[in-house]
Amino acid sequence: MPSDWTLDPELARDTTEIGDLPLCRLLLNNDANYSWLILVPRQAGAIELIDLSDADRTRLMQEISVTSLALRKITSCDKLNVAALGNRVRQLHFHVLARFTNDAAWPNPVWGQAPARDYDPKKREQLIRALRLELAIAAARM
Amino acid sequence: MPSDWTLDPELARDTTEIGDLPLCRLLLNNDANYSWLILVPRQAGAIELIDLSDADRTRLMQEISVTSLALRKITSCDKLNVAALGNRVRQLHFHVLARFTNDAAWPNPVWGQAPARDYDPKKREQLIRALRLELAIAAARM
Repeated sequence: MPSDWTLDPELARDTTEIGDLPLCRLLLNNDANYSWLILVPRQAGAIELIDLSDADRTRLMQEISVTSLALRKITSCDKLNVAALGNRVRQLHFHVLARFTNDAAWPNPVWGQAPARDYDPKKREQLIRALRLELAIAAARM
Repeated sequence: MPSDWTLDPELARDTTEIGDLPLCRLLLNNDANYSWLILVPRQAGAIELIDLSDADRTRLMQEISVTSLALRKITSCDKLNVAALGNRVRQLHFHVLARFTNDAAWPNPVWGQAPARDYDPKKREQLIRALRLELAIAAARM
């Protein structure tokens, strides 16, 4: 990993750190409307998926999958949404979202719908702890 | 490939077929506001990314990459957007979009913004031909 990677300041401001996977920093978006993860490959300068090497793209897909499985297990969501847009924040980042048919934006994509809602700090801590546990279990199996 | 896969009727209605990659059927969305590709893994019953095998997910990431490269080369777009949402159409499908800072939705995601605009049939045919050529070149290199 290049040592000059740093997290985009806007992503840092709007999220809570969960931890580092082999490639990505895993973040929880500070919006209690949704259970919304963001994966940021720790590769300086990457903006598009195609800026990553083949090996890193395969690794990213694995990390999207393992976080998707953990998120679905914890939330029992109706649908997962995954996306890399980056029209506002350029640093390559991948959204992994748990969606419910009664959530604040369903069936629309979440962007630009309901204003962000603050987490109850205890509930956020519970969710992060549950995610770390599921990801540790998944890592132990691999 | 299972023989019982068929393209979702809504996707079929709203798109023009470009061709089959090893895993995915590649479609052009019939909306001239954007150059908008849709990749549909030909695996019956798949709804989420995590419904695919590891090997198919790696293959899907390769097909997203090769179509992204072709699309950027042809359009000289400012940004690529990639997403698998599936809140309305359940069949697993992946959007790959060329975005411009002066397009009909920028910087928002495209869904639910401008109404779809019909293609000039000649321009659509040109775009599809250019994409097939780029993808053939990419395949020959692999």
